[in-house]
Amino acid sequence: MSLSDYGGRSAGLDNGLALTPPMGWLTWQRFRCQTDCEMYPQDCVSEALVVRQAQMLAHDGWLARGYEYIIIDDCWPAHQRDPTSHRLQPDPTRFPHGMKWLSDFVHSLGLKFGIYLDFGTKTCAGFPGSLDFLEVDAATMADWGVDYIKMDGCYSDPKIQADGYEQFGRYLNATKRSIVFECSYPLFQPWRKGVYLNWTRLAENCNLWRLLEDIQDSWQSLRSIMSQYAEHRKTLIPVAGPGHWNDLDMLLGGNFGLSLDETRVQMGMWAMHATPLILSVDLATMPPNYKEVLQAELVIRVNQDKLGKPADRLDPIAGIKIWKRSLADFNGGWALAFLHLSDDAGFPQRIILNLENTGISDEGLFKLTDAFTGTDFIITNATEPFEVHVNPSGIVMLIVQPFS
Amino acid sequence: MSLSDYGGRSAGLDNGLALTPPMGWLTWQRFRCQTDCEMYPQDCVSEALVVRQAQMLAHDGWLARGYEYIIIDDCWPAHQRDPTSHRLQPDPTRFPHGMKWLSDFVHSLGLKFGIYLDFGTKTCAGFPGSLDFLEVDAATMADWGVDYIKMDGCYSDPKIQADGYEQFGRYLNATKRSIVFECSYPLFQPWRKGVYLNWTRLAENCNLWRLLEDIQDSWQSLRSIMSQYAEHRKTLIPVAGPGHWNDLDMLLGGNFGLSLDETRVQMGMWAMHATPLILSVDLATMPPNYKEVLQAELVIRVNQDKLGKPADRLDPIAGIKIWKRSLADFNGGWALAFLHLSDDAGFPQRIILNLENTGISDEGLFKLTDAFTGTDFIITNATEPFEVHVNPSGIVMLIVQPFS
Repeated sequence: MSLSDYGGRSAGLDNGLALTPPMGWLTWQRFRCQTDCEMYPQDCVSEALVVRQAQMLAHDGWLARGYEYIIIDDCWPAHQRDPTSHRLQPDPTRFPHGMKWLSDFVHSLGLKFGIYLDFGTKTCAGFPGSLDFLEVDAATMADWGVDYIKMDGCYSDPKIQADGYEQFGRYLNATKRSIVFECSYPLFQPWRKGVYLNWTRLAENCNLWRLLEDIQDSWQSLRSIMSQYAEHRKTLIPVAGPGHWNDLDMLLGGNFGLSLDETRVQMGMWAMHATPLILSVDLATMPPNYKEVLQAELVIRVNQDKLGKPADRLDPIAGIKIWKRSLADFNGGWALAFLHLSDDAGFPQRIILNLENTGISDEGLFKLTDAFTGTDFIITNATEPFEVHVNPSGIVMLIVQPFS
Repeated sequence: MSLSDYGGRSAGLDNGLALTPPMGWLTWQRFRCQTDCEMYPQDCVSEALVVRQAQMLAHDGWLARGYEYIIIDDCWPAHQRDPTSHRLQPDPTRFPHGMKWLSDFVHSLGLKFGIYLDFGTKTCAGFPGSLDFLEVDAATMADWGVDYIKMDGCYSDPKIQADGYEQFGRYLNATKRSIVFECSYPLFQPWRKGVYLNWTRLAENCNLWRLLEDIQDSWQSLRSIMSQYAEHRKTLIPVAGPGHWNDLDMLLGGNFGLSLDETRVQMGMWAMHATPLILSVDLATMPPNYKEVLQAELVIRVNQDKLGKPADRLDPIAGIKIWKRSLADFNGGWALAFLHLSDDAGFPQRIILNLENTGISDEGLFKLTDAFTGTDFIITNATEPFEVHVNPSGIVMLIVQPFS
């Protein structure tokens, strides 16, 4: 299976969207299902929260870097559908102006608007699900001007998910509105235990999909996600490409649980894996050095590379894991990530290698640039040794650009 | 068993030292056993490292806050004792001027000098151990002007440790030099499995002691240490007091694995537990906001409180763990720590309580001060409710000072 297996899609969703991994902001990890706006006025899932965060997303350099979707996860709806139209409706206290108003507001900032649905009878947090209402919900989303739907899979029968999500995609197509469609159903399928999952069909019907459990705000959780992805990379790498992406879940940086080095690890590896860059954080309290990492221009260029080919892992050197991604950008170059996952190493690990060790053996010269700092690292040929120092729970990410 | 059980020591070490928990800097966690100064010139355990760090410890505000011991952990010795005197000798390449010179240099900065030994046949990293050389090693340490000895327990028979460490303490006493004596042997004893350990004897013979496995540079490791201490607190709290302390191992802040919130948790809880504050970090790369946490004046005052009584745990409120420490300082007040250990909470937890909920029910008014920021939080009586917001993987530490 290769990227080209998915190149000629004619059936399925085929909405021409998400040709690079989506970038944006999502409520879940930071704001969860907090619905008590009396007790938690700053942290409850509400119109006011979305308005505040959208303004910062638009104006604090995020949108300029590509973070364009602002997405409301679970817990936005009222507990009952509209009794006559059967449409979902937002909680009237927390979203007093309704979703069309909020969508218009978000669009007025130059952002795009996303919403969470659930394919089952209820959302994961117990709000109304979309089962038996797929068509009306697709129409409602289009009417509200929604640009991105994350469809969760709680309270649904895993056996009907592949069919059901595909059906919902057809309803989305029928609305004529361009809507990115994220499918959570692989998370509910036992593919990690070796049970067959039709990845081709998934990639035809979904712009992106969740694979693994929710990420939590800790290095332990991040490591677990990364190691599961690495374990299953031979399955997952070929499925991703322009229009259809593995989603390893939200970026954690700027919250409470990751150090700056650990934040660089996630940002760098999310770029290497060509997985969506979706913040979940109170942008008002983002420390400047974390913001710098999450807005790192070259790292984002790697993530958004038009070739859309995720990195593969090379053999480690002295305990340092190495990933390599082929790029269209940077004169058809590569990104290399050097990853130090240990917490008992103490000091930065030093390794010496040359480009040939990473399978780059072309003639001529290459410019190596540090993707996080943007500083030129070295100009070298394929055989000249160079040195990399990788912090514990840290990463060094280099862009290797051939001189033409 | 209570604090007073240890008040009347007349036998044992009884050196009058460590009346508050020692504070300082130690090589191990950050610099480990790196002995290759060619490959790792900045990170190898060497005279140059100690000189650099000692200068920063003395001049960058650390000594002014009480961080006074600079301690060299394992991997400083040459692989052979002096063939005639049988004395330990430092590695001649890495410590070219010898230990007396280094000790004098450290003292010239107003700091105190510490060294690692091992009670067994070898140190944990395989350098010469002190078994059969206890008397000569005690004399050597005194001759070098050592002020603090950390004696590890690798390669020794756990059954002879209590006797052997006591014997070494007698040799230390015989030198007439005042030397803080840290004993690692509880770490090698199966006390956590319920096997008897003579804590009274330990407290008589050692100024501090390691209890649990080495801390590593991660929240996961820190949480493990904290939860083991909490599990065994009924045993451990009464053993600690002026001159004899539980050592929960080094502070991690300023390295690679902890967020700022997690660093506050360790600093705050180390103060609550009256455990030594021993940095292990390259002071040259300490970020200013981490330095602020590790130099927080009021937190250190709690740690160094002369009553020397570690905190005990109260009942949690809404998942927030609460610890309370009685103080001599702050007009005979208390420190309260509110601890949020979850990584899947998303937003800061809000709890409402009054002082009576923490067992403080005196008449009159109390001033509550945030121990990390130094800002006055509120003035209240014992029954008035107040509110605390605790970040995920975060802490709020309040000092409750009665108005006299």
